[in-house]
Amino acid sequence: MTDPRISKLSLNQQTTKSWSVREAVEGCVRAGIPAIGLWREPVAEIGVAAAAKAVADAGLRVSSLCRGGFLTASGDAGRAALEDNRRAIDEAATLGTDCLVMVVGGLPDGSKDLRGARQRVADAIAELAPYAGERGVRLALEPLHPMYCADRAVLSTLGQAIDLAEQHPVEQVGVVVDTFHIWWDPDVWNQIARAGARIASFQVCDFLTPLPADVLLGRGMMGDGHIEFPPFHRAVTEAGYTGDTEVEIFNADVWATDPDEVLATMKQRYVDLVLEG
Amino acid sequence: MTDPRISKLSLNQQTTKSWSVREAVEGCVRAGIPAIGLWREPVAEIGVAAAAKAVADAGLRVSSLCRGGFLTASGDAGRAALEDNRRAIDEAATLGTDCLVMVVGGLPDGSKDLRGARQRVADAIAELAPYAGERGVRLALEPLHPMYCADRAVLSTLGQAIDLAEQHPVEQVGVVVDTFHIWWDPDVWNQIARAGARIASFQVCDFLTPLPADVLLGRGMMGDGHIEFPPFHRAVTEAGYTGDTEVEIFNADVWATDPDEVLATMKQRYVDLVLEG
Repeated sequence: MTDPRISKLSLNQQTTKSWSVREAVEGCVRAGIPAIGLWREPVAEIGVAAAAKAVADAGLRVSSLCRGGFLTASGDAGRAALEDNRRAIDEAATLGTDCLVMVVGGLPDGSKDLRGARQRVADAIAELAPYAGERGVRLALEPLHPMYCADRAVLSTLGQAIDLAEQHPVEQVGVVVDTFHIWWDPDVWNQIARAGARIASFQVCDFLTPLPADVLLGRGMMGDGHIEFPPFHRAVTEAGYTGDTEVEIFNADVWATDPDEVLATMKQRYVDLVLEG
Repeated sequence: MTDPRISKLSLNQQTTKSWSVREAVEGCVRAGIPAIGLWREPVAEIGVAAAAKAVADAGLRVSSLCRGGFLTASGDAGRAALEDNRRAIDEAATLGTDCLVMVVGGLPDGSKDLRGARQRVADAIAELAPYAGERGVRLALEPLHPMYCADRAVLSTLGQAIDLAEQHPVEQVGVVVDTFHIWWDPDVWNQIARAGARIASFQVCDFLTPLPADVLLGRGMMGDGHIEFPPFHRAVTEAGYTGDTEVEIFNADVWATDPDEVLATMKQRYVDLVLEG
């Protein structure tokens, strides 16, 4: 049975990138981790129905599906993105999670129209939200660290994500609180409190310096960087969030480590540095 | 005589890093650039008085001195930082500029107390502001891009910088508007308008992707990255700023280029992409 201290801990599949869905599910079971955040690409490798069966048979919760989004293109590419996002919503429903993490996309190639890109995201969310709601899935808007504004997500602060989410019913559009992306924000405590029932996902990992050559991989195991986690855990709890805490790490060293060892470290750091610290 | 289109253009000395103060001054004169932003280290190489004489003899304005700051340490290191900042204020006065750019410092080694570091910055600014004011120098608080929060500046948004500046008389503490650091901020237009007479410096350079291995060097020549400059130039002008526009670029390729060529490109890009675009 699960250690009660980790009863709300979830492995985001990206943390153990070398594992297939089945391997990650088995790894969670071995480690007593009760929930998993899945990614669409490894899910597609075995098929959505088989992935849904694997997690259900193992008795795991699916804390989120990563990811929808990339909504800043216009024209045919924009329409194709909407179609792909509808498929992602369907997949989330089949996998039994109500949380589809949305990385909204950066500036289209060659464009400097940040305001226009942000408006296209808002328009696309308005189009997708009812479709998601009808399927019991919530679009979880993830503000990404401002260093990714140009090439990955024009949604850059939690406040901005909440502003957009609030244009829709709470069961259709929520926000992601990810420590890596928002720890620097001087307004973050107000915004987490404001987010309240909009918080659809809580993700943790540390912010490393110096950032590696590929800044996407600057996410570290809790304790290896600069973030103080317990205030974030308390803040989302006080805001009313009762869901899982997902550990999502993009890091070449973590990926090169034996995944079972990664899970052991992750459990210990979660207890020592996220819950207590 | 100076081309009227570049009558408010300033070369930040960091853009032509290989040049001494005298070489940079001569380069500005050759290029018809009427102002220069100096750095303390090259100024120290020839002495403050000699540097002041060189720029005055050439008829250049000194748009800023870079930089004071690094105020997050406590104890002896904190006291030494205050002392060093008083020297920087004196140097700015001697050089004939009323603008000392302040990069406030990151988290002290091993510390995760971001709130505490921010409080120490506020305390140090309160101590330095009257000293600066008495010498006709304004502390120009520079919010740095959030990717530098841990290791360089815990001041991360223009709004946060204004909040801090507003605790002091406008002639003692202002803010820097630097496109590289704040272009992503969804609240930036409100904050520039709010800054008004607090704007002590306007700096431009572009945001490049992918970021280079040393993220400090991700600053590019205007036009080489993702930023649309004219809205920023208009916004600071509408906010009442009448000072110079400094071009400050940290970039290995720019540093490897013949500095006279860098100045020629910079003038052209400024006219084409900052003023008009």
